[in-house]
Amino acid sequence: MLKGFSVPLTPQGKSALATLPPWHYSSDCIAIEYWTDPAAIAALLPPGLTPDRKSGGRAFFWFLDWQFTGSNDELTDPARYQYREAFVLVEADFDGMAVNYCPFIFVDNDAALARGWAQGFPKKLGSIYQTRSFSAPSPAAAPLAKGSRFGASVAAHGERLATARIQLEEKVANPATVFNRPTTMRRYFPQLTAGHHEKPAVDELTLSVTDDLAIVDVWTGSAELRITEVPGEDMHFIAPLRIGRGYRLGMAYSVTDLRILRTGAG
Amino acid sequence: MLKGFSVPLTPQGKSALATLPPWHYSSDCIAIEYWTDPAAIAALLPPGLTPDRKSGGRAFFWFLDWQFTGSNDELTDPARYQYREAFVLVEADFDGMAVNYCPFIFVDNDAALARGWAQGFPKKLGSIYQTRSFSAPSPAAAPLAKGSRFGASVAAHGERLATARIQLEEKVANPATVFNRPTTMRRYFPQLTAGHHEKPAVDELTLSVTDDLAIVDVWTGSAELRITEVPGEDMHFIAPLRIGRGYRLGMAYSVTDLRILRTGAG
Amino acid sequence: MLKGFSVPLTPQGKSALATLPPWHYSSDCIAIEYWTDPAAIAALLPPGLTPDRKSGGRAFFWFLDWQFTGSNDELTDPARYQYREAFVLVEADFDGMAVNYCPFIFVDNDAALARGWAQGFPKKLGSIYQTRSFSAPSPAAAPLAKGSRFGASVAAHGERLATARIQLEEKVANPATVFNRPTTMRRYFPQLTAGHHEKPAVDELTLSVTDDLAIVDVWTGSAELRITEVPGEDMHFIAPLRIGRGYRLGMAYSVTDLRILRTGAG
Amino acid sequence: MLKGFSVPLTPQGKSALATLPPWHYSSDCIAIEYWTDPAAIAALLPPGLTPDRKSGGRAFFWFLDWQFTGSNDELTDPARYQYREAFVLVEADFDGMAVNYCPFIFVDNDAALARGWAQGFPKKLGSIYQTRSFSAPSPAAAPLAKGSRFGASVAAHGERLATARIQLEEKVANPATVFNRPTTMRRYFPQLTAGHHEKPAVDELTLSVTDDLAIVDVWTGSAELRITEVPGEDMHFIAPLRIGRGYRLGMAYSVTDLRILRTGAG
Repeated sequence: MLKGFSVPLTPQGKSALATLPPWHYSSDCIAIEYWTDPAAIAALLPPGLTPDRKSGGRAFFWFLDWQFTGSNDELTDPARYQYREAFVLVEADFDGMAVNYCPFIFVDNDAALARGWAQGFPKKLGSIYQTRSFSAPSPAAAPLAKGSRFGASVAAHGERLATARIQLEEKVANPATVFNRPTTMRRYFPQLTAGHHEKPAVDELTLSVTDDLAIVDVWTGSAELRITEVPGEDMHFIAPLRIGRGYRLGMAYSVTDLRILRTGAG
Repeated sequence: MLKGFSVPLTPQGKSALATLPPWHYSSDCIAIEYWTDPAAIAALLPPGLTPDRKSGGRAFFWFLDWQFTGSNDELTDPARYQYREAFVLVEADFDGMAVNYCPFIFVDNDAALARGWAQGFPKKLGSIYQTRSFSAPSPAAAPLAKGSRFGASVAAHGERLATARIQLEEKVANPATVFNRPTTMRRYFPQLTAGHHEKPAVDELTLSVTDDLAIVDVWTGSAELRITEVPGEDMHFIAPLRIGRGYRLGMAYSVTDLRILRTGAG
Repeated sequence: MLKGFSVPLTPQGKSALATLPPWHYSSDCIAIEYWTDPAAIAALLPPGLTPDRKSGGRAFFWFLDWQFTGSNDELTDPARYQYREAFVLVEADFDGMAVNYCPFIFVDNDAALARGWAQGFPKKLGSIYQTRSFSAPSPAAAPLAKGSRFGASVAAHGERLATARIQLEEKVANPATVFNRPTTMRRYFPQLTAGHHEKPAVDELTLSVTDDLAIVDVWTGSAELRITEVPGEDMHFIAPLRIGRGYRLGMAYSVTDLRILRTGAG
Repeated sequence: MLKGFSVPLTPQGKSALATLPPWHYSSDCIAIEYWTDPAAIAALLPPGLTPDRKSGGRAFFWFLDWQFTGSNDELTDPARYQYREAFVLVEADFDGMAVNYCPFIFVDNDAALARGWAQGFPKKLGSIYQTRSFSAPSPAAAPLAKGSRFGASVAAHGERLATARIQLEEKVANPATVFNRPTTMRRYFPQLTAGHHEKPAVDELTLSVTDDLAIVDVWTGSAELRITEVPGEDMHFIAPLRIGRGYRLGMAYSVTDLRILRTGAG
């Protein structure tokens, strides 16, 4: 009788931060390949994941401008549903499968935070920006063309956490060779009852399930990335030691499911 | 080895939105007593709570400027830990005990959102403001004195959800007669795995446990309150039919525990 | 020796909100044609402008996602220079020339506010959003195609000021027939010295000068527009009585000059 | 017929960012005394001011939580009129008079920005926070008492510009010995017409005139202050070389006038 996928539940179901799936997404993305200390990655992995020895500390830092819609034309209410995101994916191994794992992620929207927590993304609030590509020609347009420069940044509580820049060189013929690992997360919900503060009510290793994945207009080029040490954040422990290629692309998918790889912290 | 009360968990434990209790709070509050349709309250109550027949639809709308600190001097990092909140408490009955229940709540800070979800407060993001009382005398000071006027408001996604005004008349000698019900919440965390979208992983009726509660400097007076209908929100279903007294007070407490009144939605 | 087009001036010139022109802009735009009370438009016109009798109260409400760059690669610092804007243009007459005049405008960025004030745009802060068109196909993508729906809104201080929706029907072959009036503004800077509060230091009727104007990818379709009455705003006096066509387009131009049509309020 | 002290002007006068004086203010303040390079101060001074040889590079960094009201009960609309501010005052000499000068200032509210520009304060937008003193006793309360610690910070565009902390030691018997210099500003409004970009329409050295100044509850103690170098800001050129005392106080005044000390840059 009370409706909503997430809180708050109401008889009408309009207040819920997250409504029932399907959830549809389309985005513009900037992604920076980099390598960090493999031991720092290993120290962040949840039970069930082990370091990917072959990846040598490889990670990707992503910035995304997202448009979301559910079943109620949410894309026409951008004040409530459009959002921006930044996250890191580190490479790991699950039972012989090469995967990504998301230890840090920031969004600027509460509906995105609620959906993300349900999936296992450890979302916090941040201010995220990326240079956009506009169609009207101008020195301000940043077209998808050789030489165009894009910047991106994420901040939280007035502290800059990461800053990136890329310069486009060429289109990527086969993006599947670059973005080819599924993403794993840790779904985690604590208990506050005295004596149980360190025994979560929910603790699951999860695998993102995406329908109708589309990756389009992928360009690559040179890249810069800084991850800064600030009070109250541990992301700098996986700051770049070496930086690889930068990418600018469009990505879309839908979500209706989540695969649970492992339950419990034991 | 990975630390944090909430996500994100890290070896160092600094990134976690919520650190392990105790959590200490002090606030300035504006609260408006009002009566709404008892049927609208009944329709919002979770399993385990029943309408309080004697209250006749009574509710309180609260606005709070909060200062938080944990065990690491968090109060000296106000950009990260100071926050504002607005919520409704409706009167209900739990097994013969007169209680409040919180169906709607808004905060402007992600750490507060994460702690709140762990307690069962269905927090969403909002922009909340209240007139403050300053010590330097001026027409702008709003002293705690007969005749002073205070305003308060909450908005989300650029839509005004509620607006209140009060005018102080007199100090309240015995605030315990006004604020005397414990608060109950619904701790709720969904599942995204296909086929389980409406079977939450966690669904508990909880009771807020507060240590060292202090209520100080309580003034009362006349009050106005509007709760507006806006797209994407159901709070207007408990809009005021009649408005009672307004209050302006200071409140502090600490949190280290949560009482589970009932588990499961059955 | 102290540098900057606007305050704050410094020896290095980096702190200035606005640097010396040229200023380059590219944008995605949603524009709604509508008609309001001609008397309400007349009441808003500054000295030097008269009502355009033939326009019958015609106005356009615009929402714009802007990318700005100056001479220092500002487009790669989107956290500082990317911004959103909403404004009204009402039709008027200057000395026999058909013009637009801008009585209300909102932006979410202080550099844009400073540049705008220098031109005569009466900018205030607001939160502005519009549905974007993404290239990765999805129900969330809003492609530039027949049937796509776009929403847009502007809010200030947590009050929704205007909300629009359009649905694309067809491409516009010749946009010059639609967007063909130059824009006039009132450049105005007051005096605070006692006795001079109503005698501005600067009061000029200005005409926007744009170089390299490009208008691209213009689509038109059906439209909805609401302008809401809220405390502290007078924009609802020019709310729509009748709504015309909606437009979605890209626009770019550069600014290096401003034409002064008339000086002084006399 | 069109009303408003600042833009936008309307027949009703409600839209104007700044209404006609009087403007009334009350605040809680944290101020940090410090010394920087006297040459860096000298380089920032506008025509008419000269370095104060006796001050040896002394400056104060202020953080203020402000409540504003005009003639329309604005203090009961805190979403629109309450704001926060951070600024630096450097010591200088005007024609033999010991003065302060304000080279950098940040606010989080557009009405405050508009009033400030009219006075000569070179306001930009920022996010400003300070620890507050609450009356309800708690480890989170920060009472005005020996040992209490307060933090404060200012950020803009997601970059932290300055961070301060103070620890209270004792009440100040005679604050007039500390805060005893009038404040000067540079009122500056540029021209955009080609050929005149560096010839401002308004360029005045001004002196703040405050009525009914009240300074109350002044405490002093030890202090920390960092001013950080970030892209797009020059404030770090007056970063502290040595830090003096910290202060926490209440301050109120009204504004109805401005004194022009000198006109033109010549």
